[in-house]
Formats: sequence, C-alpha cells, structure tokens
Amino acid sequence: MNVVITGGAGFLGQRLARKLLQRGTLAGPDGVQQAIEKITLLDVVAATDFDDARIEVITGDIADEALLKQTITQETSSVFHLAAVVSGQAEKDFELGMRVNLDAARLVLEACRTAGNVPRVLFTSSVAVYGGELPATVLDTTALNPQSSYGIQKAIGEMLLADYSRKGFVDGRVARLPTISVRPGRPNQAASSFASGIIREPLNGQAAVCPVAGKTRLWLLSPRQAIDSLVAVQDLPAGALGKSRIVNLPGISVSVDDMVAALKKVGGEQAAEHITWQRDPAIERIVGSWPGAWDITRATALGLRADDSFEAIVRAYVEDDLPGPDRRDAPLQNV
Amino acid sequence: MNVVITGGAGFLGQRLARKLLQRGTLAGPDGVQQAIEKITLLDVVAATDFDDARIEVITGDIADEALLKQTITQETSSVFHLAAVVSGQAEKDFELGMRVNLDAARLVLEACRTAGNVPRVLFTSSVAVYGGELPATVLDTTALNPQSSYGIQKAIGEMLLADYSRKGFVDGRVARLPTISVRPGRPNQAASSFASGIIREPLNGQAAVCPVAGKTRLWLLSPRQAIDSLVAVQDLPAGALGKSRIVNLPGISVSVDDMVAALKKVGGEQAAEHITWQRDPAIERIVGSWPGAWDITRATALGLRADDSFEAIVRAYVEDDLPGPDRRDAPLQNV
Repeated sequence: MNVVITGGAGFLGQRLARKLLQRGTLAGPDGVQQAIEKITLLDVVAATDFDDARIEVITGDIADEALLKQTITQETSSVFHLAAVVSGQAEKDFELGMRVNLDAARLVLEACRTAGNVPRVLFTSSVAVYGGELPATVLDTTALNPQSSYGIQKAIGEMLLADYSRKGFVDGRVARLPTISVRPGRPNQAASSFASGIIREPLNGQAAVCPVAGKTRLWLLSPRQAIDSLVAVQDLPAGALGKSRIVNLPGISVSVDDMVAALKKVGGEQAAEHITWQRDPAIERIVGSWPGAWDITRATALGLRADDSFEAIVRAYVEDDLPGPDRRDAPLQNV
Repeated sequence: MNVVITGGAGFLGQRLARKLLQRGTLAGPDGVQQAIEKITLLDVVAATDFDDARIEVITGDIADEALLKQTITQETSSVFHLAAVVSGQAEKDFELGMRVNLDAARLVLEACRTAGNVPRVLFTSSVAVYGGELPATVLDTTALNPQSSYGIQKAIGEMLLADYSRKGFVDGRVARLPTISVRPGRPNQAASSFASGIIREPLNGQAAVCPVAGKTRLWLLSPRQAIDSLVAVQDLPAGALGKSRIVNLPGISVSVDDMVAALKKVGGEQAAEHITWQRDPAIERIVGSWPGAWDITRATALGLRADDSFEAIVRAYVEDDLPGPDRRDAPLQNV
C-alpha cells in the first residue's frame, strides 16, 4: 500500500503522515486493511520531521503535471490531496489560487486516471463552498454558492472528483472540513486564521486580533479530530458513500464569544486580555458567508464524530501543540 | 457594440446572430440600447448563411487560447458562449468534453479578463447540472448533482462565471436552458436528441426511435423562445440579477406521451407511426437524472417566459424550420 499526501509538508499533511505511520495500515480496494509500505509527501518545501524509512519526500510545484505523474503511479493506492492556497491568499492572488486549488486538483485526478489503477483519492473541501442566503443549518441538499475564489475552486474540485469517480477513473471521496481550530504555528492568510489565533496567541502570551464580532458563529473541528476523520473517510468502502462522494464532516457550532470563554477557562481570565477586537470588513464578508453549522446526519451514520466541546479542543491544543518542552507533557490545567 | 458568439455556426448560434442582426441593438454597460456594429461568429466550421457586413466569421478551435484572445478584445462588449460538446458525446469522449466544455469556458473568461473591459458574458447551461434524488420541482436552492460529464462541465462553467463576475472581471450571466425541442436538422449525440427527433422526423416523413418510456417527463423550450430568452437575459441590468448570476429559464413540463399527442394533433394520427419505441438504458440513465420541471419564480420576475404549450412549439417548428419551399409559408395545419 503506497500512499501519496499532497501538501505533505503542511500542518495537516504532516499530522496525517504521523497518524498513518503510527496506524500502519489503510483499507485496500477490497476493504481489508493493508500495511502501508510507503508514504510520499509532496510539497513545495520538504517535510523534514520524519525519521522513518516508509517516508519519501518529493519537493516541487503541485501544479507541475510531470511531477504529479512521477509521484502518482501504478503503485499508488491512496492519495490524500491536501495541497491548497488558503482563502485569503486565493482572494488576493487570483491566478495563484486557480493554479494551486483548481489546476493542481485536476492534474492529481489526471495523474490517477493515466496511472490506471483506480486509487482511492480524498479531497479536502471546506465550509467556503457554501454562501449567500443559507438556512440556519445547511443540509446536504443545499445548493453551493461560494462567495470567495477559494470556495469556487474547492467546489470545482468536488465536481471533478465526483465525475472522475462516476467514470471509474478514481474511487474518490470529499471530506468537507469545518474551520480547523486550534491550528498550531503562526497566523496565515486564511480568512479564518483568527479562529486559531485568538486561542493560540493568548495561550502563548502573545497578542491576537479578532477581526469579527463576538456573536459570529463558526463551525469548528480540531486538528486531532480532523485527521481521524480524514483517515476514517478514506477507509470507508465506496458502497457506504451511496450516491454522493461528499461527506460534510461533523463540527461544533460555536460563537467567537464562546471561544473566548473557553480560552479563559483553560488559560485563565487574563488570557483574553491579549485579544484586540478590530473588525475587518474583508474578513467579515468572507467568514460571514460561511455556514455556522451543517447537518451531520450522513456523517454520523458513516461513523464520524465531532469534538466534544470547544473547551476540549483548546485542551487538545495544549496537549498536542503548545510549544515548550515542559508544556508538551504537562497535565491539563490552566497555562 | 461588438458581439462575439462562440459556437456561432451552430443551430442556436446562427439563430441568435439572425435575431441580433434583425434587432440591431443590445444593452450597453449603462443599460442603454446600443447599435450592434459587429457580430463575430467563432466556430470550428464557418457560418456561411449570412450576407450582412456586420457579420465576421472566424474559424478555429474554441479551446485555442491565442484564437480566443484574438477574437475577444477590448472592443468586445458582449459575449454569448454557446460552443459545447453535447451530452452524449461528452460522455463518450471524456477528454474532448473537458477541453471544449470546461477548458474553453475558462479560456473565454480569461480572454475577457485580460482584455480588461468587463464585457457582458452569457453562458448557456442545462438541466444536466441537476441529478440524483430531486424534488418534483427543482428550486434555485437545490444542490447541483450532475450525473454526466456534460453536466459536471456545465456546472463548473457556471461556478467560474460566478467568480469572474464577483471579482469584476466580467458581467456574467448563466441561462440554464431546458431541453431544446424541436431542434431542426439531423439527430446529434445529445442524450436528448430524441426529444426533437420524435417530432421532427415524423413531420418530415422519416423514421424516429424513442429511447425512453412514454411517461418520461421532460422540461422543454422551443428554439424561438430560447433565443428570445438569451437576448433578454443578456439585456438584464446586472443589478436585477441580485445575488446569483444564474437564471433557470422557464420551460414547460411535458411527458413524451404528451409530445406524441401534440405531434398527432399537428401532423395527423399517422405521423406517430414513424416512431419506434426502443428503450436505451444509457440514454434513460442520463435523461432520467434531469429534472422534469424547475421553479420559474425568479425567471418570471425577471420578465422571462415559457412557450404556451408543446403544441405551439410543434407549430413553431413547422413555421420556422420544416424543410420545403411550400411548407415554410404554409398556414398552420396538418402537414
């Protein structure tokens, strides 16, 4: 079982690789778990944190057709296509977004089609495919109406994956991710970057800006639960997916005020003092177009689950990611 | 006012050109009708039926980037992008469908973007963007779920047009067409080809095969009304479109049995004897995935209208298209 992870040097990509190494297996075409012999991490920068003979690192442009055909071969049984330009960046640099989010997705599918052995292919999609006037809870039957280039590009990737699956070129599945929080590392150009920053920075004693109103409702998933869900979706038998290749992953619907309350509970009252509230209309427009919740009936029936609470998410961040040698293994308490 | 029609040698393209020549004007960016100075017909074959100095004919590959940039220039105010590979053909030849239906649509938008003067751009889309489990009447809020490569490619074109419009690169609009009937000429590779053939061939004394059950419900629009609608949608001020660039054009919901009844009424009882009923699972699968009706509230509010009845559609075919010098001007009666 050879696995390819695009965006393999990114934060989700590296975590997924670690999870797969630890797990050691993935479902093969017949549904039986097979030993993972190789995990190829493809990204523009090298994934360096691995010391495992099963890891292969390939660096290059994700929209390079030749590179993709060299990376995805007849030996590839499973592809996790995570490489993407984030929402804010795709909005600022239209051509970059089209190349990485649309062209690369299509080239991944084409590489699979020409390789010819119908690999399982998982695309990550996003709350950003929804927009416009939405019901309080988005349903699987709600029309997509993306209000950002990122959302459009993700929605097109979903469509392509559906058709390549219907045609039998790949065994595809789309995991629509809630906004990931708490993402470790530094702020990025995602419109939702603040959804991690307002927790992460205060817990690290640093300043954070919240660009939206406290009552703004977000649909959130922890990195830990996201990785578990991606593996679970890739492991589902195609038959379980029924007529749609898309799974809206369970999230929790939390207001920004709720998030700050959880921050105070885990990090102490003073933690919230690191947050400056300064609304940014460009971010509010994009984030405000996303659903605050979607229906999880289908995902739940498929065995997928959400985080228990936002407080649990914050505690998981402290456990998994808070920097500092002492903190990594520290018991769960105010930090 | 310079207009470009892609697929300009096709049946809808030529009719649209004739309509525009006869009309003489289209709405400019300010909403005021402007005289049409040039209509460029771009297609793989030359449109030959015109004797009008305003017509320019360009032949070449619609997915040729250089050709599109030469055709769509700073002088272009209005683009009707009609060029397409039909549903049955896109299903059989995946790569051709992707190139003509997807790549060319994107290249048209890119040519408009790089020309830089924000032309009005109309894309024709289709019932084929819907599919799967559908409500009896499809709503504007119903999720797209295309069950054919053609439908996927059209849905992607819609998404791209929406984003290019939101970004201010074009002033785009999508006219989702019901199945066009009665299309003149010969059968083609559209899965819906029979929806014209079972009327056209009998009226011309020729044999036709009906590949679906008589109770199959179709959502139909005449060529005459389709052309009127395309012009009307292109003439709408952008403000009238509101939050969506898409208009589901009004059609009439008719069963195949109803169609045959209308054929008999116009062409006589014996006309139906030219039809052989022979079900074709491949066609039934595609056509059966399309909606039999969609909600026309939005289109009606925008001033668009459907045909009066299928009998009126058949009579319009006899008036406009039935071959033979005597028949063209003959009074409406059994033929």
